[in-house]
Amino acid sequence: MGVGDDAAVLQPPSGMDMVISTDRVPTDLLALQFGLMGMRDLGSYLAEVNISDIIAMAARPAGLLLNVGLPSDFLISDFREVLEGFIEAGSSHGAPLVGGDTTYAPSPTFSATAVGWVAHDSALRRGGAKLGDRVAVSGNVGAFGAALVYFSARRTGRVNSLSSRTEQRLLEALVKPKARSELVDGLLGEPCVSGAMDITDGLGQTLSEFADASGMGIDVVESHIPIDDTVAEVSEITGTPLMDIAFGIGLDLELLLTLSPAAGLPEEAGGLTLIGEVVESHHGVRVLRGDGRPSPLPGRGWQHFQGDPEDLIAGA
Amino acid sequence: MGVGDDAAVLQPPSGMDMVISTDRVPTDLLALQFGLMGMRDLGSYLAEVNISDIIAMAARPAGLLLNVGLPSDFLISDFREVLEGFIEAGSSHGAPLVGGDTTYAPSPTFSATAVGWVAHDSALRRGGAKLGDRVAVSGNVGAFGAALVYFSARRTGRVNSLSSRTEQRLLEALVKPKARSELVDGLLGEPCVSGAMDITDGLGQTLSEFADASGMGIDVVESHIPIDDTVAEVSEITGTPLMDIAFGIGLDLELLLTLSPAAGLPEEAGGLTLIGEVVESHHGVRVLRGDGRPSPLPGRGWQHFQGDPEDLIAGA
Repeated sequence: MGVGDDAAVLQPPSGMDMVISTDRVPTDLLALQFGLMGMRDLGSYLAEVNISDIIAMAARPAGLLLNVGLPSDFLISDFREVLEGFIEAGSSHGAPLVGGDTTYAPSPTFSATAVGWVAHDSALRRGGAKLGDRVAVSGNVGAFGAALVYFSARRTGRVNSLSSRTEQRLLEALVKPKARSELVDGLLGEPCVSGAMDITDGLGQTLSEFADASGMGIDVVESHIPIDDTVAEVSEITGTPLMDIAFGIGLDLELLLTLSPAAGLPEEAGGLTLIGEVVESHHGVRVLRGDGRPSPLPGRGWQHFQGDPEDLIAGA
Repeated sequence: MGVGDDAAVLQPPSGMDMVISTDRVPTDLLALQFGLMGMRDLGSYLAEVNISDIIAMAARPAGLLLNVGLPSDFLISDFREVLEGFIEAGSSHGAPLVGGDTTYAPSPTFSATAVGWVAHDSALRRGGAKLGDRVAVSGNVGAFGAALVYFSARRTGRVNSLSSRTEQRLLEALVKPKARSELVDGLLGEPCVSGAMDITDGLGQTLSEFADASGMGIDVVESHIPIDDTVAEVSEITGTPLMDIAFGIGLDLELLLTLSPAAGLPEEAGGLTLIGEVVESHHGVRVLRGDGRPSPLPGRGWQHFQGDPEDLIAGA
């Protein structure tokens, strides 16, 4: 690529398919509104969420484009920090900045496009799950949601502070999500993996979309869900049900996977945790509680256009 | 691609490089502010400007991603029109919609990414021009700028109306620019073409960027510039110098090309007009007027963050 050209040029590795995705950072991001997120974090976040979509297809990230609209009074120093955070995060996943566009906009707007490569016909789809496939997550869930609930409640003074160690951990989850690119060469290349999707819309909504895409149902065992340690603490002090946080508001960049048992299950690979199974068609997602009885999905995913995490907090 | 997947999958044709570019429609687009541009036009415009960047690299457009941020009160029917215009324009260039993102934003924001394929190592760069290369444009210039100047002046009642035929032509240039994808298989594949760039920032600024990228100067013969018929009419009634319009405000989606005479010049190919020559290094762009004497570049390109076409109008 020549900087200044109309477009960037990338040479596809032989025999590879291209995977491409675009995501915007919502400018009503609560972490920004709460003053918890710096401009460098914002840039990093934008890169990570775009790269996560590439990884969820089992593709290797290869490049990023940044598309920014800024008002005239936006500080150049702030823009530089966004750019630095974006480039640094992209580079950490092997995805350099290859192009972009910066124009005037009445309010700041940040979107990006990520591209990656995957062996021909090997991209992981959502609809690949089969009856009997196991459902797994690539790591702990709920810390992002817990952070939103906690910092929302703190902001209005409704709850006391958690320890600074827990606060720090919640803050990291909220403003520094990391895409799981290390899974591409390991787990995601295993023949047992039949489908993948990242959990950027919350575990509950992601499970629902996965079930819908497959035309199958999913039963999840509540006690098997690897919930981040912070979630119980936040649940207790805010009165928000634990599972509402764990299943609800997203942006953990972990992956939801389906695995075919016939191909051998790597139960411990890369922090993988089995949480459920693909079952008969057309009943969506059920949660099996301690007594083994199914109940509907608690909580809700992040709903664009209507999301307000403060609704989740008891008494809000 | 499966709709609903995290990312789209495209198979690169064997031996081809990928070309990728992203552009935003500035939401302060004057045609929108003037009420001259419908939502369908906006979608089409967004597709065309993105595709034009792919074409300017001599690549064949292959797909589009749409990235939209919308406030809660944005009408679904308007969004549908944007989408239809975008898809229709993309399809007309062989570039289907393959992915996208729609999120909340406090004010409407529309960006897109276009991808295309070009034979390995055959992408046209800006910096490819050599001493003695001819400079050409792929069609008439100035209609977009004339339209901006005219409709700005009309809006404030400073000038009388032009004929409805001329108005219609100006309106088309303003709201329905078309990328020149038909040039990819013809002219842009000719061995004589050493560089290309689209004229979305105005002819003057595009010439300057071309000269800078090549480390060369460019001499342009003023009388050779193929100026759209409407420009003289608008110049006359608004008092704006003809060449300020022709060299100034952009978004004609024509291409500026450099051609190597040694490889044989296709002087008449595809409406191509020779307007100048690549000359000695490091003096930017000069315009040769009737007396053969060089003068500096008139007008100015569209300057993001500070552009105001009304400044161009005499007495404004």
